[in-house]
Amino acid sequence: MRYPLITRYADYDSKGHANNAVYLTFFEVARHSLWRDTWQREADPPFIIGEARVKYASPARIGDLLVIDIRVAEIRTKAWVFRYEIRDASDERLIAEGETVQVMFDYVARSTRPIPEDVRQKLESIRV
Amino acid sequence: MRYPLITRYADYDSKGHANNAVYLTFFEVARHSLWRDTWQREADPPFIIGEARVKYASPARIGDLLVIDIRVAEIRTKAWVFRYEIRDASDERLIAEGETVQVMFDYVARSTRPIPEDVRQKLESIRV
Amino acid sequence: MRYPLITRYADYDSKGHANNAVYLTFFEVARHSLWRDTWQREADPPFIIGEARVKYASPARIGDLLVIDIRVAEIRTKAWVFRYEIRDASDERLIAEGETVQVMFDYVARSTRPIPEDVRQKLESIRV
Amino acid sequence: MRYPLITRYADYDSKGHANNAVYLTFFEVARHSLWRDTWQREADPPFIIGEARVKYASPARIGDLLVIDIRVAEIRTKAWVFRYEIRDASDERLIAEGETVQVMFDYVARSTRPIPEDVRQKLESIRV
Repeated sequence: MRYPLITRYADYDSKGHANNAVYLTFFEVARHSLWRDTWQREADPPFIIGEARVKYASPARIGDLLVIDIRVAEIRTKAWVFRYEIRDASDERLIAEGETVQVMFDYVARSTRPIPEDVRQKLESIRV
Repeated sequence: MRYPLITRYADYDSKGHANNAVYLTFFEVARHSLWRDTWQREADPPFIIGEARVKYASPARIGDLLVIDIRVAEIRTKAWVFRYEIRDASDERLIAEGETVQVMFDYVARSTRPIPEDVRQKLESIRV
Repeated sequence: MRYPLITRYADYDSKGHANNAVYLTFFEVARHSLWRDTWQREADPPFIIGEARVKYASPARIGDLLVIDIRVAEIRTKAWVFRYEIRDASDERLIAEGETVQVMFDYVARSTRPIPEDVRQKLESIRV
Repeated sequence: MRYPLITRYADYDSKGHANNAVYLTFFEVARHSLWRDTWQREADPPFIIGEARVKYASPARIGDLLVIDIRVAEIRTKAWVFRYEIRDASDERLIAEGETVQVMFDYVARSTRPIPEDVRQKLESIRV
C-alpha cells in the first residue's frame, strides 16, 4: 500500500532535513493508516513494537513531497514484519527504508498472544 | 481557508488526547499550507512567531477526524495575526481556537522588516 | 521555582532555533517538575490545560543553556494560572514568557472539579 | 558513558509508554551529550546518521527514571557505530538497546569524508 506522507515544519532539523527520529513516526503513520484501512477498526491497534530499523538513503528536505510504501514482509506466530520505503513523490528517489516487528498484545492480560485468525488472513492477503 | 488536519499517533498523550503542545504544531501546519497555497513559494517562510495563544475547548481523541480553519485577523506594519479554529470534521464540534502573531523577518540582515507590498495585498485579500 | 531546561537537538528547527511549539512542552516540563517536587505524587497530574499563551522574546539557539522559572500567578475555584519565564542560563537573557491555565479534573466522573484543599494550600504557599 | 535521560510527558503515548519513535531521540540526546563532553565543541556535530536500530525490551512508563549508556562499538574509515542501552535507574531493568551508524560529513562539500585523526583517536579511547 502507498500513502502520501504529510510532513510538518517541526519534523525538520537545523540542517533542513527530516530528523532521523521522525522516520519512525512516518512508519507509524503508514502502519496506522494500513491498520485503519484494512480492519476498519480501533485507532489504537492491539500490538506493540518489538524492533525497528531504519536505513537512511538520502535526505528529505523541506518542501519535498513524500510517499511511503508499506507491505507485510513476514508473518510468525505472534508477530509480523512490516517493511517500509519512503520515496520522493516527484522522481521516486529512495529516501529511507526500514522495518518494524509488531507483536500481538493482549492489554487486559498484559501479555503477548498469537495473531488472531482474521488478522492473519488479512496480513496474508496483503503480503507481497 | 479550511485544511484537513492529519494527526499522528505520537500526537496523543497518555490520556488519549492530542497533547496541548501539538496544537501549536497544528497551527503551524495550517500556516505553512496557506503560505504555500497563496504564494507558491518557499516552504521555509520569511517570518518569525512573536506570540501564540491557544484556548482548548474540548479534547481531540485518537481517531477523531479534524479540520482547521485559518484566517487573517489583523494586519500591522511589520506583523499580522492569524486566527485558527480546530473542529471535529464530523460534527463541527470546536476543539480549540487560537492566534499567532507573525513578524516579517529579514534573515540576511537579522532584523524585522515591514511586510512587502505583494504579501500585504494577498493578506488583505484573504482577510475576513 | 527554577529548573534547568534540557533541550534536545530535535527541538530545533531549520533556522537552528527552538521551534515555537516546543515552548509549550518546555512549560509542561516545568509544570510536571513542580507538581512532582511539591506533591511527591502521581506523574500524570489530575488537571487539564484550558489555555496557553507564549510570548517569544529572543531565539533559543542550539547550544544555549536554558533555565525556566515557574510560579503560581492566580488561583480560582477550579483553576489556577502558572506563569513561566525561559532565560539563557549564562546571562539571564529573556527568551520567552507565558502562562497556562490549569483546570482541576476528575478523570473518573469526566468533569472539572474544585481545587482540593491540600492542593490549594500548596499553591498558595508557592504563590508569588 | 552513562547519562540520565530526562523524559517529557509528551514522550508518552496513549498507553502511558514512551512512544517507539522517541527512543531514537533518546539515542540522539546521548550522542550529542557525548559529542559535547568529549570534543567541547559545536553543538551541531558534523556527521549524518546512516542507519538506526532499536530493540524494545520492556516499556518505559511515566515516572520511571531512566539512564542511557552509550559506547563506541565499531570504527570504520568514514563511519562508526554507537551502541546504546536504556535502563531503569532504580533496578537496571533493560528497557531498550540499539545502534546508530554515524557517517562523517562535510557540509561545505556536501559529501561524506574520512573520520579526522583527532576524532578517531577520541573514538578509539572511549571504545569498549
